[in-house]
Amino acid sequence: MQANRATPPAPSAQALVPFVSVAEIMAIIHRIGLKPALMDLTDRIAADFRRWPDFDKTPRVAAHSPIGVIELMPTSDGARYAFKYVNGHPANTKAGLQTVTAFGVLSAVDTGYPLLISEMTMLTALRTAATSALATRTLARPDSRVLALIGNGAQAEFQALALQAVCGIDTVRLFDTDPAATAKCARNLAESGLMLIPCTSAEAACEGADVITTCTADKRLATVLHDNMIGAGVHINAIGGDCPGKTELAPAILSRAETFVEYEPQTRIEGEIQQVGADHPVTELWQVLGGQAPGRRDAQAVTLFDGVGFAVEDFSALNWLYDQIQPGGTMLDVIADPDDPRDLYGMLQRAR
Amino acid sequence: MQANRATPPAPSAQALVPFVSVAEIMAIIHRIGLKPALMDLTDRIAADFRRWPDFDKTPRVAAHSPIGVIELMPTSDGARYAFKYVNGHPANTKAGLQTVTAFGVLSAVDTGYPLLISEMTMLTALRTAATSALATRTLARPDSRVLALIGNGAQAEFQALALQAVCGIDTVRLFDTDPAATAKCARNLAESGLMLIPCTSAEAACEGADVITTCTADKRLATVLHDNMIGAGVHINAIGGDCPGKTELAPAILSRAETFVEYEPQTRIEGEIQQVGADHPVTELWQVLGGQAPGRRDAQAVTLFDGVGFAVEDFSALNWLYDQIQPGGTMLDVIADPDDPRDLYGMLQRAR
Repeated sequence: MQANRATPPAPSAQALVPFVSVAEIMAIIHRIGLKPALMDLTDRIAADFRRWPDFDKTPRVAAHSPIGVIELMPTSDGARYAFKYVNGHPANTKAGLQTVTAFGVLSAVDTGYPLLISEMTMLTALRTAATSALATRTLARPDSRVLALIGNGAQAEFQALALQAVCGIDTVRLFDTDPAATAKCARNLAESGLMLIPCTSAEAACEGADVITTCTADKRLATVLHDNMIGAGVHINAIGGDCPGKTELAPAILSRAETFVEYEPQTRIEGEIQQVGADHPVTELWQVLGGQAPGRRDAQAVTLFDGVGFAVEDFSALNWLYDQIQPGGTMLDVIADPDDPRDLYGMLQRAR
Repeated sequence: MQANRATPPAPSAQALVPFVSVAEIMAIIHRIGLKPALMDLTDRIAADFRRWPDFDKTPRVAAHSPIGVIELMPTSDGARYAFKYVNGHPANTKAGLQTVTAFGVLSAVDTGYPLLISEMTMLTALRTAATSALATRTLARPDSRVLALIGNGAQAEFQALALQAVCGIDTVRLFDTDPAATAKCARNLAESGLMLIPCTSAEAACEGADVITTCTADKRLATVLHDNMIGAGVHINAIGGDCPGKTELAPAILSRAETFVEYEPQTRIEGEIQQVGADHPVTELWQVLGGQAPGRRDAQAVTLFDGVGFAVEDFSALNWLYDQIQPGGTMLDVIADPDDPRDLYGMLQRAR
């Protein structure tokens, strides 16, 4: 607290918010190692899911346009608040842009001040893979070793590596409607230790698979998996269908599978279960983790994780990232912090 | 599109988003001049209000805690999308922090990519003052010259200067329950050309006022203005009451005044009109600007702008700011932009 002074003050520590750029998050991931990071993040998401009732939950706030969607995904546990901004524009790929980009913010609930601003395209890829790994660890047969990976785009390698690191997958059967995507994925995973089997159809990819992950990107009611491709005992992570009008599974699969979701009100709108009645039984994954609901019934059951991505996962990821940042990173002067909080105008005057 | 290469690429132009820090927005305001900036912004908000039906509108998305609120305020006109993050924590002042801080983002709807990330504490102060100026220009008697400014905190000087620049106010009667705030405000406005009259009560401040602006900060049902303080022909900008449980006016004033609001569904929750029935008649300000509804009835009427701050004003402000930024400012590497959009993992590998 003071009166006018001659020189504009430098931003105070309270004015500065750590910023994690794309380059910085990649450096953090390499420092930790991608697989340890995916394992950490899986455990962090599991821990937050176990205390699910602590979180304020709301379906995402979406702004739809004819060619895409921009969404805000906020949540809070009463101590910290997080939100993610994420877009989904399938036509972006043709223009050399990302279909999905994201950034987000972590804040302190007691002051409302941001603690961290971060890129979240890369972080979302990690948390989406970690969430599939968590669902698979919770719902798949423990002896699952073979993954069919349908859709070999931007999310594919992260899915394969998370399921290898967390669930013991050792073989990945790859398929994409574009063989170049499969080749890209196989090339990127060449040194992963996974046995890689490129396939020429989704049917072929599913042969002998214990776990099937679908992560395709087309925004339409595409049928990536048909009922006859799903053998007894399989676990499915259907993560590419994540908005109204975008699904991947034939409805007949839903009638056979035990369906698990993140947050039912959101998944009813965005998930595979938008294809079936609102009374289709589902179990929220957190209930299985916390022992409030059964998971897989037996080794013959088909389990389905109808994943759409939920704000609590981003909350977990941002809190995980906040614990990884070290001094010396980028700080943004984003909070106007006058010496006297009531004297915003005086701060502006002194900056002249 | 290419295969692996040896060195990590520098972030592409598509990866970089302009960032306007607190220091940078202050430099921009000084380059333009505060009063011209307030006048520009008033006209920009007026233009956007006139095309009100173009905007997607929703009440803000609020996360309440016992000591404050964190809100997201999104809107879009179909070509651009904007949101603001803003907190409200009255106890922050005692800790030397701002009650309200804000930042925001402007994006392109066709790609979902952000165009601008900006501090918005300073920008919100400007747009709030510009909105009051717009309401005053639209609703007050044209010969209004004397402003009573009740609440002399962070918003006060901006209100006084906007009403001087836009509406021809030449005299400001100041009152705050804390005389130090009034002294701060008078000191800051000493060279503004306004005649300043510090007063020892709200009643005294209102004597002879043509326009009354209340911008107090206590989060409680405080009564800043009583009915007997409001003479015939006065225009009131009640802008400090902006969330459930926070109001400034005695209900009797509402029954006498013609009430104008930004976006009725939000103001019913947050504004002065939360004190009266849901059938209390109000007019949205944009309807007056567009000629769809009458404004002030006659020179004797009391008009009330029950301002709570709406996302369209932030949209206007971010678009205005976007037009002011020049090359050489801060760019943030916030968008992961691999050469092949499907090869996010390859981008991560190459950054090792």
